[in-house]
Amino acid sequence: MSAFRLSDQTRLFQSERPLRLESGADLPGLQLAYRTWGRLSPRGDNAVVLCHALTGSADADDWWAPLFGPGRSLDPARDFIVCSNVLGGCYGSTGPTSLAPDGVRWGARFPRLTVRDQVRAKMRLADALGIRHIRCVIGGSMGGLQALEWALLDPQRVGAVVSIAAAARHSAWCMAWSEAQRLALAADPRYRDGAYDPADPPVAGLAAARAMAMVGYRNAAALARRFEGEHDARAPFSPADGAVQGWLRHHGDALTRRFDAHSYRVLLDAMDTHDLGRGRGGLATALAHLTQPVLVGALPSDTLYVPEDQFDLAAGLPNASLVAIDTPHGHDGFLIDAPRVDAALRRFFCERLAHPAPCPSGRPAPRRAASPFVTGGQPG
Amino acid sequence: MSAFRLSDQTRLFQSERPLRLESGADLPGLQLAYRTWGRLSPRGDNAVVLCHALTGSADADDWWAPLFGPGRSLDPARDFIVCSNVLGGCYGSTGPTSLAPDGVRWGARFPRLTVRDQVRAKMRLADALGIRHIRCVIGGSMGGLQALEWALLDPQRVGAVVSIAAAARHSAWCMAWSEAQRLALAADPRYRDGAYDPADPPVAGLAAARAMAMVGYRNAAALARRFEGEHDARAPFSPADGAVQGWLRHHGDALTRRFDAHSYRVLLDAMDTHDLGRGRGGLATALAHLTQPVLVGALPSDTLYVPEDQFDLAAGLPNASLVAIDTPHGHDGFLIDAPRVDAALRRFFCERLAHPAPCPSGRPAPRRAASPFVTGGQPG
Repeated sequence: MSAFRLSDQTRLFQSERPLRLESGADLPGLQLAYRTWGRLSPRGDNAVVLCHALTGSADADDWWAPLFGPGRSLDPARDFIVCSNVLGGCYGSTGPTSLAPDGVRWGARFPRLTVRDQVRAKMRLADALGIRHIRCVIGGSMGGLQALEWALLDPQRVGAVVSIAAAARHSAWCMAWSEAQRLALAADPRYRDGAYDPADPPVAGLAAARAMAMVGYRNAAALARRFEGEHDARAPFSPADGAVQGWLRHHGDALTRRFDAHSYRVLLDAMDTHDLGRGRGGLATALAHLTQPVLVGALPSDTLYVPEDQFDLAAGLPNASLVAIDTPHGHDGFLIDAPRVDAALRRFFCERLAHPAPCPSGRPAPRRAASPFVTGGQPG
Repeated sequence: MSAFRLSDQTRLFQSERPLRLESGADLPGLQLAYRTWGRLSPRGDNAVVLCHALTGSADADDWWAPLFGPGRSLDPARDFIVCSNVLGGCYGSTGPTSLAPDGVRWGARFPRLTVRDQVRAKMRLADALGIRHIRCVIGGSMGGLQALEWALLDPQRVGAVVSIAAAARHSAWCMAWSEAQRLALAADPRYRDGAYDPADPPVAGLAAARAMAMVGYRNAAALARRFEGEHDARAPFSPADGAVQGWLRHHGDALTRRFDAHSYRVLLDAMDTHDLGRGRGGLATALAHLTQPVLVGALPSDTLYVPEDQFDLAAGLPNASLVAIDTPHGHDGFLIDAPRVDAALRRFFCERLAHPAPCPSGRPAPRRAASPFVTGGQPG
């Protein structure tokens, strides 16, 4: 069991069968914590799957609230929406904080995971829920990596993909950010490569890693707008200098109260394995086989999963729609400016999919305008 | 004395007078380690001062070798070139690793510094060397901050400034990078806020901080070119995945063998105080008073001191020349592509200054072509 708080609506899926991991190791069964919204259709064909980012949970209506509701891209009256905590996470799914078969916390013994392992675990949940067709797998950042993998691992079931601020392969740049965070974690001797006492976790190391990550989730202009006021009369060491420092320390500290350090590490490692081309004849070949419609969402201000990552991804896919999501906030814009993500999703659903989502206002009438579900006129 | 190795040519300047710091504290005397190249003219008017970056030393002919020599921007046959290790550093100048008046290492007791304190210390050295006129104060990154400050603190003596990849005021973005590094340092309990045993320094914390810094010194495209090969057949955890990680660990480890952790912290703190406008009626007013010719060098690929910092600086100065130094390497391009820096400096010297440096080839004849020193025709 995770020590981290789950929402009351979270349910637990158990699979007793071992999961063969990409490393060759077997995970002896697994649990996934998940949420659902809406009802699965009798034909099992109205599912929409959401994949959360690094420190997210199954509570998608919390971290992506503006996407939920009538007229929004995720409507429980129409869709059967599923979001599960990722394998290796600490919000109720099997990970370093859960118990191994010997009854002792996995901790440092938890096996290394890949994004594919994480998707295969989620596919078991989809099987168990009776989902026969997934209209769209949707994710940003780490969730976007999973969404792309899912389309290749489960092509018969996945109808479309939305990948925002992600990549076809984890870049050397993203790996460098991961590694700096791993080193920060390791600088805290309490971390002990994950073999720490849960009552005495490496909070300083995790806070430092999170602070680094937060820098990458923003950009120079965003921090300037937020933290640079007029300092004409300030003393050199006045508190006014400390605004951005305090903000980083706050985010570092806050994560230590809600996230497990080794789970963080396991997820960083898994992200760094991301490469759609591995074992598939290379990236170009793999992308050519990903024939579903894919919305590739690029954030022009993203300094982490830079727009070039999205251009490369979209250029290699046979059926991609590239959209720029205009947020000034950098990588975290996919969360902060969720209404813009919602608008981009509705447009994609309206123009490219049989998915009966309402179209954004002011758009040309969709080709499927005869559908009773296409109502249009929603705010962007 | 510093525990870190100095080049044989390094000399030591001692000043017994206390230095009143911007914080109000007095530093009871100081030592600066410095190098010189060439000879001071009888009139004391041919000095060129170089300011090193965060982990640099007085050995400018090492870290900026391509700028030195006949026909280059720094010619010892023409210029009296001076570079001193910064106050607070660990390459021979007074800092946390040197001894306090009580005969015990300063360590955590070392006072907080500002960039202005550091420049005032260097001005003492210039006085002692008999320098009456400085043709140009030149620096990149931290050195650029000092070069700008110097022009305002010592306007009668400083004839011109070259500031590359720096800023008029340390941005919230740069402060965020600093803070993440401070947190990494603090995650190592051996750091003890600087009060560590020199025989047992916080190497893990410093290595993590340096790794974070190295990420900011590059950019996504630079790391992609260097580390992303074809990985078609790679296993998910193959060594091929580790290239960029190994590079970061190497740079982190390497710094711990050549730099003191608390000195690193003192210098980070000083950089974060940088604000040309502090106590001068605000930034706009301060920049208006910086009337010397200033070459503002922007690196288009710099993700740390972003080009916008250079645009803001140049726009506020009455006598600035903005130049883009075309390097793909990011912030560290000012070191890696030093020949391009050299070309930019020669052009600035040729077109804007009375400084008799040779002009780059293919440039229009300078207005001061009558000078016997302007020879032109050097490779760019």
